[in-house]
Amino acid sequence: MPNLHSFLQRLFSICRSITGNGVRQTLSIIKEEMPDLQIHEVPSGSQVFDWTVPDEWNITEARLTGPDGEVIADFSYSNLHVVGYSEPVDIMLPLEELQEHLHSRPDLPEAIPYVTSYYARRWGFCLKHSVRQKLKPGMYHAVIKSTLAPGHLTYGELVLPGKSDKEVFLSTYVCHPSMANNELSGPVVATALARWLLAAPRYYTYRIVFVPETIGSITYLSRNYQQLRERVIAGFNLTCLGDDRAYSYLPSRKGDTLADRVALHVLRHFAPDFVSYTYHDRGSDERQYCAPGIDLPLCSVMRTKYHVFPEYHTSLDDCSLVTEKGLQGGFEIMRKILEALEENVTFQCRVLCEPQLGRRGLYPTLSTRYSCTEQVDLMMDLLAYADGTMTLLEEAEAVGADIFRCSAVMRQLEEQGVVSHKPIG
Amino acid sequence: MPNLHSFLQRLFSICRSITGNGVRQTLSIIKEEMPDLQIHEVPSGSQVFDWTVPDEWNITEARLTGPDGEVIADFSYSNLHVVGYSEPVDIMLPLEELQEHLHSRPDLPEAIPYVTSYYARRWGFCLKHSVRQKLKPGMYHAVIKSTLAPGHLTYGELVLPGKSDKEVFLSTYVCHPSMANNELSGPVVATALARWLLAAPRYYTYRIVFVPETIGSITYLSRNYQQLRERVIAGFNLTCLGDDRAYSYLPSRKGDTLADRVALHVLRHFAPDFVSYTYHDRGSDERQYCAPGIDLPLCSVMRTKYHVFPEYHTSLDDCSLVTEKGLQGGFEIMRKILEALEENVTFQCRVLCEPQLGRRGLYPTLSTRYSCTEQVDLMMDLLAYADGTMTLLEEAEAVGADIFRCSAVMRQLEEQGVVSHKPIG
Amino acid sequence: MPNLHSFLQRLFSICRSITGNGVRQTLSIIKEEMPDLQIHEVPSGSQVFDWTVPDEWNITEARLTGPDGEVIADFSYSNLHVVGYSEPVDIMLPLEELQEHLHSRPDLPEAIPYVTSYYARRWGFCLKHSVRQKLKPGMYHAVIKSTLAPGHLTYGELVLPGKSDKEVFLSTYVCHPSMANNELSGPVVATALARWLLAAPRYYTYRIVFVPETIGSITYLSRNYQQLRERVIAGFNLTCLGDDRAYSYLPSRKGDTLADRVALHVLRHFAPDFVSYTYHDRGSDERQYCAPGIDLPLCSVMRTKYHVFPEYHTSLDDCSLVTEKGLQGGFEIMRKILEALEENVTFQCRVLCEPQLGRRGLYPTLSTRYSCTEQVDLMMDLLAYADGTMTLLEEAEAVGADIFRCSAVMRQLEEQGVVSHKPIG
Repeated sequence: MPNLHSFLQRLFSICRSITGNGVRQTLSIIKEEMPDLQIHEVPSGSQVFDWTVPDEWNITEARLTGPDGEVIADFSYSNLHVVGYSEPVDIMLPLEELQEHLHSRPDLPEAIPYVTSYYARRWGFCLKHSVRQKLKPGMYHAVIKSTLAPGHLTYGELVLPGKSDKEVFLSTYVCHPSMANNELSGPVVATALARWLLAAPRYYTYRIVFVPETIGSITYLSRNYQQLRERVIAGFNLTCLGDDRAYSYLPSRKGDTLADRVALHVLRHFAPDFVSYTYHDRGSDERQYCAPGIDLPLCSVMRTKYHVFPEYHTSLDDCSLVTEKGLQGGFEIMRKILEALEENVTFQCRVLCEPQLGRRGLYPTLSTRYSCTEQVDLMMDLLAYADGTMTLLEEAEAVGADIFRCSAVMRQLEEQGVVSHKPIG
Repeated sequence: MPNLHSFLQRLFSICRSITGNGVRQTLSIIKEEMPDLQIHEVPSGSQVFDWTVPDEWNITEARLTGPDGEVIADFSYSNLHVVGYSEPVDIMLPLEELQEHLHSRPDLPEAIPYVTSYYARRWGFCLKHSVRQKLKPGMYHAVIKSTLAPGHLTYGELVLPGKSDKEVFLSTYVCHPSMANNELSGPVVATALARWLLAAPRYYTYRIVFVPETIGSITYLSRNYQQLRERVIAGFNLTCLGDDRAYSYLPSRKGDTLADRVALHVLRHFAPDFVSYTYHDRGSDERQYCAPGIDLPLCSVMRTKYHVFPEYHTSLDDCSLVTEKGLQGGFEIMRKILEALEENVTFQCRVLCEPQLGRRGLYPTLSTRYSCTEQVDLMMDLLAYADGTMTLLEEAEAVGADIFRCSAVMRQLEEQGVVSHKPIG
Repeated sequence: MPNLHSFLQRLFSICRSITGNGVRQTLSIIKEEMPDLQIHEVPSGSQVFDWTVPDEWNITEARLTGPDGEVIADFSYSNLHVVGYSEPVDIMLPLEELQEHLHSRPDLPEAIPYVTSYYARRWGFCLKHSVRQKLKPGMYHAVIKSTLAPGHLTYGELVLPGKSDKEVFLSTYVCHPSMANNELSGPVVATALARWLLAAPRYYTYRIVFVPETIGSITYLSRNYQQLRERVIAGFNLTCLGDDRAYSYLPSRKGDTLADRVALHVLRHFAPDFVSYTYHDRGSDERQYCAPGIDLPLCSVMRTKYHVFPEYHTSLDDCSLVTEKGLQGGFEIMRKILEALEENVTFQCRVLCEPQLGRRGLYPTLSTRYSCTEQVDLMMDLLAYADGTMTLLEEAEAVGADIFRCSAVMRQLEEQGVVSHKPIG
């Protein structure tokens, strides 16, 4: 796999939406990294819970030309210039009438905003507010060469079987056009995680999906939610993982699932200045995965959260906002979380009372003021809780050490026959 | 119904006690406002749990005259001048012997204190300390024309049937002579609530009782507690609802009943500077209604609490201490609490995942920075918790909005078929 | 029984270890105060859970002599001079080789440290660092006349039957040579408690054990833990009870057992400036009694805790560090805890609603501003919680009074037939 930022750049210029060839092209590039990725096509008109899969949208060309023939906005320059799901149009109209089809951000005059209208037929152009303010009166020519017709919604799914059929679920989305943190960092980090998981020993089965946001996760759930409810022990929505400003945590609806507890443990130990949000701040596919009656144990770990960073949903969320360091940080924190899940077993001391560690070389045989080290103290503390009811994560929280350090101690004790473990799922 | 303060003034001069014609006369005036009020008479000597209904007390006249024939205290001027339940007396006695029959408040020298001796035979006069200090030596003439004889304890009960036989229980007391906040504000606000309830649509059945404090609530419970335990979902002791200085909350014994939670919700949103007491500060009929083995879900919402306001249990608690504004405030907060109880149903989203609100006109179809309003956010938050396990009160607490605003949103969603509701009792 | 400090002094000079005649001699003196003390002997080589009872160690003489014949360390001066469980030796060796057999405390140059090597064969001398630094080169003569041979581990056990076969368990240890706070204060206070219990009325059965630390408690548990698990309602490890600097509390592993709650209640009311530790700070036989699968409800109440006081495990922990006042304070706090356990029954009001206390002389019959005292308020508060589900300890915590004051009120109510009680175990 190339480095993460190069991979992001390769995907950047594709015009994605919730359906269409941009999604297919994106998934095709991702599939190069994981040949087992399954591509699913769901026909327009399919009923998915309360929703209907919409017509497929494709676009080849769009241009807004001014009274003097000057090009105001051109799709070939930035796909953000066109309102997502714009119907085709070829019309001359005066500036006054054009205005209701224009979108800009007075608060960010140099940004092209990202606007969509998936479920109501419209057309429109997005442009810098600084440009919009200089438009002069006269006739404008708006051309959008798009199609809206029955087709399919496309998503990708990769299943990596482990020893257990209990699953860790990762979801990311592939419906945003040229924006980097929200949203190409998600699929890029998901791809890196998939490649790492392919090579790593796995106890759990991993399921990674690349879906369009909202309609895609709803579609996926409508086909799979019962199985997911039975199998998923922890899940993560992968989004906004590419800038290098912050780490962020957004809980599941219930707030204390295994996913939440592992994520918080890893963040507290390895990114302790992370920003903690509440479920009221949600805004991505946890809305579906945590919905009443679905209730997957799923939370989000991000770098700077959607809605929060100023470049969000504009052309300023570009390849310079996202860095290799930022993406690597997103990948590393997620990898640590998955590793922590794998380490999280239940240990039980195999003897009653304290085991005699001295004869196993694990405890000083000479008792002086200086004989007990911090490492011995940690071992004794972990043994004190190894009653077969606490998971290692709970033990680690109880003793105040990170789960990896605790696991190393426990594996040493297990080699000596002092403790034994069983998986939790 | 006249305005509340006029109604209070009409009841003010009647000499009430825990039995006797003053209670009957009071209930008779209240019955004018609610013809269905049932008047119950319980004979003296009846055993009610650990207590016995005492002889009935009536009084027509009482006067204390000084050595020079000057009137020191006269029942016709203020019924507080006589110790409640004084036995009859007609005696000449020197000041030194009289003193043990006199009661005054050194800390409030211009107040006539309120003193009673229900269960031990005594006689006595209450007077201003400033007057008492000027009494000169000599013979005094004490005359009390009262009767203490087998009769009845009298109480009133009104039941307003609703769609459900689950009940909301309101209790107030009618045993205090001429005092306004404690206690005529209670029966006055209870009367206003009864009249409002008569005209309002009701899901719950409402039971309103007007009893003498302590012995009356014990008598009432001894006859009805099993039915009350089965039916009452929330209850309120109505007392001290007439001054305009504060709002106060005193919890039930268990502290987290539905009554407590609704009262606190309404107070926090509509009278956020209320004073919160603990069950240790109790002092009215919650002592009986919340007693072990009775344990009705009942708390108290008051204006300034008994024991706390300086005029408490003296002649200073008069019609000027209680105001129309104060009584209306007491009525309004209690009405809001009852309305909140009626609104408190359980909503469940009828579809899995988020419903598509856009096609129902409830969600913007154009996605821009400016499309989501606070109202839409509230709707989405309420839907996120509408899993059929949380009551609307719990949802309102979770989203931080008042239950009435939440209810308006939910009713709109229900009209659109997105959610359905069921009552909680 | 002599005063506590004299008793401690009598035991002080005996050379105790985890086995041997020092333990027997100590138990024999303790038995003088409680003739029913049973002495148990467990053979070397016995398997006790993960451990094996070691060979018995006895010592008669030990001396380290310098190049000029000067005595560097002599067992007859202080038994701390010899490393506990030293194997016999009679050897001439140069200073350089001697050094690895010497132990001193650079941070406490005037203290002889306490060092042991129970499970690995060694020999060694402990001495003041100030002395060690002045040792001159040359040949030294080390003589230790000890025996390490199959024998027994010795412990004492006293059972004081009560009305119930539910037990209160007290454990202390008798394996430390000449040190006073840690550890002779434990057996001394345990002896005083036993003598007090012998004369006191007892509901519970009391079991008091005098064991060598760690191997002794493990041995005892291996023979008795199932019975202890069934019967023990609360237990206390008695250690460090003799200085007069602090009171300390170290919780059980679970942290909220009856033992913890009673200990905290008594400490908060009678030694409110006590120091509170966590289970991470443990270091005595709670390591065994609270181990997973054993989990006795046992905590520790101490004066200044082991590890914490600077003289800990050195010759500075002598008879001047421990005072009669300190020992009496340790005894008194433990006695109060045991008394609180005995008082901790469940009271239930025998009538519904409030009982009529006035006719029983427990409540004022005249109702005035001044009629209710703090004592009456406490009585009413206790009655308000006497629903048969709360123990008196829980009631005392709820009303904020100490359990002894609450018990006095409840006994008065019980005499009047208002409440009845039942034991909790």
